[in-house]
Amino acid sequence: MIIHLKEGIDEVVAKELSQSLEAIYFVEHTRYVLVNAAHNKTLKDAIKPYVDQFFVFDSDIQLASRKYFNQTRSIQIDGLTIGGGSENTLVITGPCSVESEKQIEDCAQFNKRLGIAVLRAGCYKPRTSPYSFQGLGDEGLELLKKIRAKYGLKIISEVRDATHIDEVIEAVDIVQIGAKAMYDQGILRKCGQTRKPILLKRGFGSTLQEFVQAAEFILSLGNSQVILCERGIRTFETKTRFTLDLCGVAYLKAHINLPVFLDPSHAMGYAYGVPDLTRACVAMGIDGLLIESHPKPSEALSDASQQIDFEAFEDLFNSLPPIAASIGKTII
Amino acid sequence: MIIHLKEGIDEVVAKELSQSLEAIYFVEHTRYVLVNAAHNKTLKDAIKPYVDQFFVFDSDIQLASRKYFNQTRSIQIDGLTIGGGSENTLVITGPCSVESEKQIEDCAQFNKRLGIAVLRAGCYKPRTSPYSFQGLGDEGLELLKKIRAKYGLKIISEVRDATHIDEVIEAVDIVQIGAKAMYDQGILRKCGQTRKPILLKRGFGSTLQEFVQAAEFILSLGNSQVILCERGIRTFETKTRFTLDLCGVAYLKAHINLPVFLDPSHAMGYAYGVPDLTRACVAMGIDGLLIESHPKPSEALSDASQQIDFEAFEDLFNSLPPIAASIGKTII
Amino acid sequence: MIIHLKEGIDEVVAKELSQSLEAIYFVEHTRYVLVNAAHNKTLKDAIKPYVDQFFVFDSDIQLASRKYFNQTRSIQIDGLTIGGGSENTLVITGPCSVESEKQIEDCAQFNKRLGIAVLRAGCYKPRTSPYSFQGLGDEGLELLKKIRAKYGLKIISEVRDATHIDEVIEAVDIVQIGAKAMYDQGILRKCGQTRKPILLKRGFGSTLQEFVQAAEFILSLGNSQVILCERGIRTFETKTRFTLDLCGVAYLKAHINLPVFLDPSHAMGYAYGVPDLTRACVAMGIDGLLIESHPKPSEALSDASQQIDFEAFEDLFNSLPPIAASIGKTII
Amino acid sequence: MIIHLKEGIDEVVAKELSQSLEAIYFVEHTRYVLVNAAHNKTLKDAIKPYVDQFFVFDSDIQLASRKYFNQTRSIQIDGLTIGGGSENTLVITGPCSVESEKQIEDCAQFNKRLGIAVLRAGCYKPRTSPYSFQGLGDEGLELLKKIRAKYGLKIISEVRDATHIDEVIEAVDIVQIGAKAMYDQGILRKCGQTRKPILLKRGFGSTLQEFVQAAEFILSLGNSQVILCERGIRTFETKTRFTLDLCGVAYLKAHINLPVFLDPSHAMGYAYGVPDLTRACVAMGIDGLLIESHPKPSEALSDASQQIDFEAFEDLFNSLPPIAASIGKTII
Repeated sequence: MIIHLKEGIDEVVAKELSQSLEAIYFVEHTRYVLVNAAHNKTLKDAIKPYVDQFFVFDSDIQLASRKYFNQTRSIQIDGLTIGGGSENTLVITGPCSVESEKQIEDCAQFNKRLGIAVLRAGCYKPRTSPYSFQGLGDEGLELLKKIRAKYGLKIISEVRDATHIDEVIEAVDIVQIGAKAMYDQGILRKCGQTRKPILLKRGFGSTLQEFVQAAEFILSLGNSQVILCERGIRTFETKTRFTLDLCGVAYLKAHINLPVFLDPSHAMGYAYGVPDLTRACVAMGIDGLLIESHPKPSEALSDASQQIDFEAFEDLFNSLPPIAASIGKTII
Repeated sequence: MIIHLKEGIDEVVAKELSQSLEAIYFVEHTRYVLVNAAHNKTLKDAIKPYVDQFFVFDSDIQLASRKYFNQTRSIQIDGLTIGGGSENTLVITGPCSVESEKQIEDCAQFNKRLGIAVLRAGCYKPRTSPYSFQGLGDEGLELLKKIRAKYGLKIISEVRDATHIDEVIEAVDIVQIGAKAMYDQGILRKCGQTRKPILLKRGFGSTLQEFVQAAEFILSLGNSQVILCERGIRTFETKTRFTLDLCGVAYLKAHINLPVFLDPSHAMGYAYGVPDLTRACVAMGIDGLLIESHPKPSEALSDASQQIDFEAFEDLFNSLPPIAASIGKTII
Repeated sequence: MIIHLKEGIDEVVAKELSQSLEAIYFVEHTRYVLVNAAHNKTLKDAIKPYVDQFFVFDSDIQLASRKYFNQTRSIQIDGLTIGGGSENTLVITGPCSVESEKQIEDCAQFNKRLGIAVLRAGCYKPRTSPYSFQGLGDEGLELLKKIRAKYGLKIISEVRDATHIDEVIEAVDIVQIGAKAMYDQGILRKCGQTRKPILLKRGFGSTLQEFVQAAEFILSLGNSQVILCERGIRTFETKTRFTLDLCGVAYLKAHINLPVFLDPSHAMGYAYGVPDLTRACVAMGIDGLLIESHPKPSEALSDASQQIDFEAFEDLFNSLPPIAASIGKTII
Repeated sequence: MIIHLKEGIDEVVAKELSQSLEAIYFVEHTRYVLVNAAHNKTLKDAIKPYVDQFFVFDSDIQLASRKYFNQTRSIQIDGLTIGGGSENTLVITGPCSVESEKQIEDCAQFNKRLGIAVLRAGCYKPRTSPYSFQGLGDEGLELLKKIRAKYGLKIISEVRDATHIDEVIEAVDIVQIGAKAMYDQGILRKCGQTRKPILLKRGFGSTLQEFVQAAEFILSLGNSQVILCERGIRTFETKTRFTLDLCGVAYLKAHINLPVFLDPSHAMGYAYGVPDLTRACVAMGIDGLLIESHPKPSEALSDASQQIDFEAFEDLFNSLPPIAASIGKTII
């Protein structure tokens, strides 16, 4: 149950009410919002005098539900708008990992030349094996800060676990929570306390219900700047790395009020399929895309098979505006 | 191993060679083609004098492989062409099941008005429960024949099991092998003996490898008119009925020489997601689409939730040509 | 809804009632049983004078439900009893395929020596590739008939598709419907008309609901001799061939009134895991086991990796009685 | 590649060598062990003078492989031994969560009465919804410490994310890494630095390869006390909560040198299936079991459906020794 308290009710009262209801509370604009697990008729009646509006749900998808707020929430990324009626589809590209100053500088210049405002690059890599390249860590974050200042690009980078969440939040414009960290409450709670945009990737073994509930952890701490990112789920099929769940995207667009991004690179796992999948995503009317590109994919230190080179990316990028236009969207 | 015998070699010799190689053989144009499981150096040398060309593969995907024939095969459906460099995307619609003469006539008139050349409708329904509507069977096929004659529409209808395969082949322009029958050799072998086009749906629990191998059963009996149809695979996600595997479609387009159709209706299971998914499929550059439509979906005797009504279908259909055009394809 | 008509009501009336209720009907003992999809209050009242008992269900699992008949049904295999309070666990073994008279004779003698009453062996193999060994077909069935007569063994063999179902029913003591044919109504309907025991394998992409509904096709035609066989489902795990679903077996034992067999050989796909899995199955208190054994597994024409040799099988077989005894069951 | 340096080589040299090889290194007994991703012939030759033994692998399963150490590693839990030729199967029980002092005291007394040495209970619950009971946190850990001191029970409790890993390590005898945290390097690295036993649960969307690689993170930091715990994977089946992967257990037993525990409670999700599954696990010859029990399951604050009551647990527990005995194992 979501409860909008009346304007003017102060925090002491909000806190007391939230305790009696076993609810979470946060400030939104000039009022307090309370959310709890279950609808309780008696308690509901008892607190009526303090309440502006009640919203009752049949599942623990509440703040993210279109039954609560029936539009795509608007996300502000330092001047860029997605969702909120903007009809923008934001294209983000960059390498899987920051590997060196030279490499990330090449990528930044490439983005600049194409007019792509946001650069992606990972510093803390959630690798499966302890014996693989684990990312440059803090050193990588420092490189991203330099690039950000030098080129005026916005940065999205991934947090791997809760031990470096503060550093990532401080360094980036969009905090990326990777698929393997989707359930990590150490991360989710910190992301609920910042006001920076959060891009939450779906765990590859996670249901849509769990995916949106992870977003609820962030929303229920008062950060409404949450983007959902579908990046492929694990199925029995092995010819491709994962299976991009566009049926799931159709579900999210219809039932959830958060913008939806797609990551076809991780889903496919092979560069050859990325262009076709990207065009399919754009034609679905989504809010954004994360595509891995690299100056020399064959030399990449991680995810070499799925990154596309600059030439292929440019061809792909140029093919998107007419598709977007044909469904009333704009590539930004 | 695929073996093209030299022109002029007669069937007696072809048969003998195929026995010595444990191979299947069939006529193609004016020569015999032999296919067997394994590459055998000694046998290969022994038969060289009879052979025009050898093709060796590392898996049992052979006739369907782009390593054998590096284009999309051309399929002729009574005057319509798909594949073979045509750049056509064929849209097929119609109800899940033939329910009555009135209903199927309404559907036929709707297709005629929109200029949609092929009507889909099932007569033998592979229902999960014995207590549900099982389709009109032979009576339904008779209705489809009448409609075919009256409106000049081409017909695609599904075979459920091997007991009525002859009747279906005789009545339709495209034989549809449903997902639950993908492995049915009684059906596959009969479809290999006809020369009518076959639309083979992927089993929802079947890998791409198995899917294409089922097509090999048909191809290896000499029928090259095979269309693959992805219709969603079964995953852990339950908010949608199945998961449309567009990564798999990207794989098929790159590695397999058969045209690929998509069925977003069965994948999604809910009408609300069908338009977005259909547009995504078109933007991938596929060869055709199967979409369920019904005069009154809520009264449908099967798959009521996923069929869209005529108005929604018309809106959707009108939105497709610009998307197709933006990637160089034409909706037919 | 299941309806037991009163004793003495004749077929003319039973047929009329079943038509008015859109129900299937069959004779059981001395009365007619009707089953239809939905509970309809008005119709129910109208037919009350003819009815001995009504059973109403919330899903299309009806005849197989423990809410209808709250015991494991008793199955008679020519003198052997499973289910029905017998506490027997029947062990069946034999090769994947009949390959030659010598091979199947070796297997028969091995079974005889160990006192194993039922021999398994396939003649029509549902192979994935058209280029692999497809089984000996009719010739294999003839060999099995000879073996059956010579050694007094009971035979279980698999039907691949509806084109040879009559031949298989005639030749065997238990008809095996393979995983790939689970939905095949051509087969299911014929198996409903015979009175021989049917072993129905779960499709590897099929839910427990669909599995039991396939059994309902047989039960609703009056053949109550149905055994369910779990043989592994397809999951994302690739180190093993399939994933044996023992949680599903726990569900079936609690909710369904049909005996449950297990096939650990197909689930695992590798001989090394079969003994441990077999012991696990026995400890669950199941009704029977299908285990592939072969005189020389490495030379087997199909499923070579998962068949165990006679020595390994004998060790395994000897380890089972104490486990069975510890849960009150007897290996037969 | 695993490299055993010669005895007597000091840390300075070990460190230098590990840097030149891009390897991880740790002390084991009186020698240094280096592990890196790839076998490199040139480097291998260069360091030969320092090396006692090389082990080369074809995947990143190295320290956990039976090709490296061909027995089950021995784990010491404060006087209890599992693995290492002990033939013990350790039964652990307790509630899902610490809910109150009274509740956990009841559980402790129950364990004491049955002679069960290890008590399980969670304090930081990785709940899917932010609106559900999240565990008692630090307060719960304090209760567990009291119980531990008072009853002399060993404690296993779960870490949810990296923010409280130090507290959990300090409080418990076995650190449990939950399924949702399996990839959490913040946790894995800390667990590699302690010498307490770690029970690592398989992520429900994780392959066996990834599962064992997560264990490699811990092993490669020098903590060899790692137990693997299979607790069910996510599949398309929805009648049960997860699917217990006993084929996977057969794989682990054959290929991996770490003890394997099973958690049938989480796999099944329903109390009714737990006894049968538990007996199946014991018959497989596993090293231990985690079973949820609760004084009043229906009042549990988390996982109410899958916890069994004391009476059912006692019946189950008493049924296990004869099964274990029949395969040469002992329940402890």
